[in-house]
Amino acid sequence: MSKFWSKVVHGLTPYTPGEQVQMPGLVKLNTNENPYGPSPKAIAAMQAAAGDSLRKYSDPSNAALKDAVARRFGLTREQVFVGNSSDEVLAHTFHALLKHDLPLLAPDISYSFYPTYCSLYGIECVQVPLNERFEIDIADYNQPCGAIIIANPNAPTGIGLPLSQIEALVAAHPDQVVVIDEAYVDFGGLSAAALLGRYDNLLVIQTLSKSRSLAGLRVGFALGHPDLIAGLERVKNSFNCYPLGQVQQAGAVAALDDVAYTEQTSNAIIASRTWLNAQLQALGFDVLPSQANFVFARHPQHDGAKLAKGLRERAILVRHFTAARIDQFLRISIGTDEECAKLVEALKQILA
Amino acid sequence: MSKFWSKVVHGLTPYTPGEQVQMPGLVKLNTNENPYGPSPKAIAAMQAAAGDSLRKYSDPSNAALKDAVARRFGLTREQVFVGNSSDEVLAHTFHALLKHDLPLLAPDISYSFYPTYCSLYGIECVQVPLNERFEIDIADYNQPCGAIIIANPNAPTGIGLPLSQIEALVAAHPDQVVVIDEAYVDFGGLSAAALLGRYDNLLVIQTLSKSRSLAGLRVGFALGHPDLIAGLERVKNSFNCYPLGQVQQAGAVAALDDVAYTEQTSNAIIASRTWLNAQLQALGFDVLPSQANFVFARHPQHDGAKLAKGLRERAILVRHFTAARIDQFLRISIGTDEECAKLVEALKQILA
Repeated sequence: MSKFWSKVVHGLTPYTPGEQVQMPGLVKLNTNENPYGPSPKAIAAMQAAAGDSLRKYSDPSNAALKDAVARRFGLTREQVFVGNSSDEVLAHTFHALLKHDLPLLAPDISYSFYPTYCSLYGIECVQVPLNERFEIDIADYNQPCGAIIIANPNAPTGIGLPLSQIEALVAAHPDQVVVIDEAYVDFGGLSAAALLGRYDNLLVIQTLSKSRSLAGLRVGFALGHPDLIAGLERVKNSFNCYPLGQVQQAGAVAALDDVAYTEQTSNAIIASRTWLNAQLQALGFDVLPSQANFVFARHPQHDGAKLAKGLRERAILVRHFTAARIDQFLRISIGTDEECAKLVEALKQILA
Repeated sequence: MSKFWSKVVHGLTPYTPGEQVQMPGLVKLNTNENPYGPSPKAIAAMQAAAGDSLRKYSDPSNAALKDAVARRFGLTREQVFVGNSSDEVLAHTFHALLKHDLPLLAPDISYSFYPTYCSLYGIECVQVPLNERFEIDIADYNQPCGAIIIANPNAPTGIGLPLSQIEALVAAHPDQVVVIDEAYVDFGGLSAAALLGRYDNLLVIQTLSKSRSLAGLRVGFALGHPDLIAGLERVKNSFNCYPLGQVQQAGAVAALDDVAYTEQTSNAIIASRTWLNAQLQALGFDVLPSQANFVFARHPQHDGAKLAKGLRERAILVRHFTAARIDQFLRISIGTDEECAKLVEALKQILA
């Protein structure tokens, strides 16, 4: 606390990211990173961009990157917003599009950064409980609100909604912005980008951190009607005109264009998830049905915190949340097959 | 305008950056970019970082980069904040430290992003006029206020205040944060970082875009008392926990450590500035005394807008502002000696 702080700072509860531990031999399954590296084409593009031309500012309109995103989704440049990670895109979205007289609706169990953005921008948030199967029930969102945000697939549950339900939610709130945060959509979900031609109140947000394996590059984007994008651009250009450097943009364009590589690595992760799911169930875990690059699982006879501690003692990191209703669960990122096997082996020892 | 926008968006006047034009043979002296490339050590470090490890998140505490900044200034890690460009650092500073019941004071002619940040965060700003020589007079800041921000050297004038006056300003406002924005300090100024041991209300902001020639990488930092830094960290961790990717951090550390290269290229720019200054004066221009990598000049007999247009027709870009009091000036970035000579030759043709 300091007399020099603005009032808003005193009331903030900053987001706590998963630990970034450096340790030889560590099996790191705590932050949903991709176990495979980025596209070799993206690496080549970044190395080519890391040169003398960095003396110049990058293109503040991000035209090349927006065009690459637009190509991928069959959209126009005016329907695309890009930023320094989907967290930055989310922050600008909360500021530009989600602050209204009526409260924002969000699931009670979801990306835990949402309430933090609300406190940063003074947005009232009503947390809508997941049902008893930890699913989002769109009927629960039929209440007065200024805007809605959900993650699909949701995190940390991994459970996805079918596109028909997303469309029903968007159609039921024509006067509110509905944000679908699709960080994990490439591991078995369907993107709501397909609905953009029919709804002017839909904003879809994605990241290159997961399926494009570029968590350390920091690139995310939003897709929506040009009026929504224009609102985001106004806030972005009142915050930082050049949020993405040249290396970021070059790497992101190449990664987005390398569709075959993304599909190949995403399919490998989906196959590993299927295997891990079966192994965990064989060990007696309840595993929620995941469409993401992680699984969310609890054991009826073993405390979640103790399991996480036991894994940590065996140099395996998973994420354990202390929030109500989910404090018995472990969120386990899908690693390589070798990492998944090590995890299963360690759990067998702990449960024995 | 859109019904989906938050109220704040309607009132924003986003910042307009200088044009980023791509054209063969263009002499680009409009955005104060460094005419020399980044340190070869920085380029090597970035190329090494652009690899498989980008699949992982970067260190959210930015420890290595903070330590590099701390080394450079003889400070501790707790006195350093880093961000995705000094524009992002400034944005968080306005939000975290400059919003109080009393208004913020800033020069009327300065970095034109300051009023934009104020409208983004709802901060009342009182613009304090420069004196008739376009200088900041610190006596004019003896008025009730919540905080103060000045650029030193100031932009777009290029005029610097001596450290004794900066210290007097900081000492006269012990209960207000005083921000010194030093984007251009390495071209002949002295950093207020030297005063940090004595004042807990001083925040110094710098960028790697100018003297480190990394405008296209996006790295900036702030130096101050740990309590001020803690306030910035709280806002940063409520906005984006990982604002800097691995390539950015690797390049920035190497650039900060290559002190000899920064001094050599900055000295070359200072020598070119001296030459350009003399040439412009010989052509009849009034040139303000610059401590920056640009000069600010007007010609008593020639309209500023027309001069900028004439230069543009000769494929030379300079920056012309339309604001009152400075609409007759050109802001001319210091290029290579060859670029400066081309500019002088073109002005001779236009004035003839």
